[in-house]
Amino acid sequence: MATVSAGAKLPFSKMHGLGNDFVVLDARKHPLVLCEHQFRAIADRRRGIGCDQVIVLESARHPDADLFMRIRNPDGSEASACGNATRCIAARVMGETGRAHAVIETVAGLLMAEREPGGEEISVDMGEARLDSSDIPLAEACNTLHLPIALGPLQDGVAVSMGNPHAVFFVPDVMTIDLPSLGPQLEHHSLFPARANIEVVQVIDRRRLRMRVWERGAGITQACGSGACAVLVAAVRRNLTDRTADVVLDGGRLIIDWLDNGHVRMTGAWAQSFSGEIDLARLSDREGDHV
Amino acid sequence: MATVSAGAKLPFSKMHGLGNDFVVLDARKHPLVLCEHQFRAIADRRRGIGCDQVIVLESARHPDADLFMRIRNPDGSEASACGNATRCIAARVMGETGRAHAVIETVAGLLMAEREPGGEEISVDMGEARLDSSDIPLAEACNTLHLPIALGPLQDGVAVSMGNPHAVFFVPDVMTIDLPSLGPQLEHHSLFPARANIEVVQVIDRRRLRMRVWERGAGITQACGSGACAVLVAAVRRNLTDRTADVVLDGGRLIIDWLDNGHVRMTGAWAQSFSGEIDLARLSDREGDHV
Repeated sequence: MATVSAGAKLPFSKMHGLGNDFVVLDARKHPLVLCEHQFRAIADRRRGIGCDQVIVLESARHPDADLFMRIRNPDGSEASACGNATRCIAARVMGETGRAHAVIETVAGLLMAEREPGGEEISVDMGEARLDSSDIPLAEACNTLHLPIALGPLQDGVAVSMGNPHAVFFVPDVMTIDLPSLGPQLEHHSLFPARANIEVVQVIDRRRLRMRVWERGAGITQACGSGACAVLVAAVRRNLTDRTADVVLDGGRLIIDWLDNGHVRMTGAWAQSFSGEIDLARLSDREGDHV
Repeated sequence: MATVSAGAKLPFSKMHGLGNDFVVLDARKHPLVLCEHQFRAIADRRRGIGCDQVIVLESARHPDADLFMRIRNPDGSEASACGNATRCIAARVMGETGRAHAVIETVAGLLMAEREPGGEEISVDMGEARLDSSDIPLAEACNTLHLPIALGPLQDGVAVSMGNPHAVFFVPDVMTIDLPSLGPQLEHHSLFPARANIEVVQVIDRRRLRMRVWERGAGITQACGSGACAVLVAAVRRNLTDRTADVVLDGGRLIIDWLDNGHVRMTGAWAQSFSGEIDLARLSDREGDHV
């Protein structure tokens, strides 16, 4: 029939964590070489499959790893880490191996993941929170627990590095903050030479925080895993919460633990939305719509 | 494995015409009863499959029809017609039957479609263009070839009904028109008691028009088939083009013919993006993200 091509079809699955969504391609048995144009076409939400990032599963290099997870942005560039993707891929590995833990290799190193006993949520070790001004980095040495900047209702912030820079501001009500205006101004503040992710946080109680995030280079997003970790660390440093708390983002809820060894553990949901097959040779772009 | 549910999986295909995209479900052999919540979950671009509309294929009621095409908006409400969807579904029918024509039954009646000889583009008879002020409808009787309204650079418009109301404005350069501001003001002008779709058009030559559209109730869209038909009819009435011309929208190119019998024929591309299976029982929504 006309709608079926003679070309080979590529199986994929579509997964998401808190609405941060991924097309997952398995290149462990057969190498997969895709060009920038094809990543863009796959990520196109109307003419392709549609996603925030394309995840390519490759054979592990490290002997302890279950697989290598490569994260491609729609422009073909490579992302170093993504907590939401790690939960999804770890869940897939656990489904394949029947084990309750997985080791995911990335360009940034090994990530350890576990399935929570009696549940399906996945925990990922997000690494160590770093608190020195040179680690964030900040343009000048200062107390990261009380940043010397203020913009309207956002003042007295806390800086945390989770491998990427975060500035966390506590407010009475996150919904009243004009994040589309304040976020980009603070992201580009001269105190942050590598720019910063901007979080606004409302303390519900010692076990629950409500946050919204302006992501560096991306704007407001529904869920930022490293941002949720930074927020919990900042709240503990200010003695506003316990070392374990629910962090509620626009896209859903994560549980964040700041462990005694300084590492931060993130626990949350993952979902496989659907699976399918796509014919890459017939994937249309804006100029060649016709199949 | 954890990612595969015990529940039954529903096969689907994803199609689009000029970027107007559809999830297509086949309920011809087995009836499919979906609730509003499920339509919304399927149409969700991050947590479901993602689409503008869900198309449900049902057995034809009319003896001449190949099938019945039901068009559901993401809120579960029913749309009466869509030229882009008709091309996609007609192409699928032709693939199944091996014929070069198809009759698609909809809540608005039978739609006749043909495959162009030697190509894959599909033509659909979009019905008769109506030009009387009561047909559009307009709030007062007036010459539909020179509407008595003006707003900035948009003046001396032409009104056409393609079953829905259109107001077409010719301009020197469509890219200089502030459609996000002017579109909604004209859509709600008191001359249009049922509101109107607003088209701005630039004449390239007698065989080619460039248009942009503000759709009634939807805003700026990449492609509006009835709008392209209205634009060609308006251009012919003003003697700016021949009765057959290419109409270039943001989403791609359509060929529009105003036939001698008063009907308008639309010809254009269609595409099957991918096919897959979804487990409706595990489709997550915003509140129940975890699978």
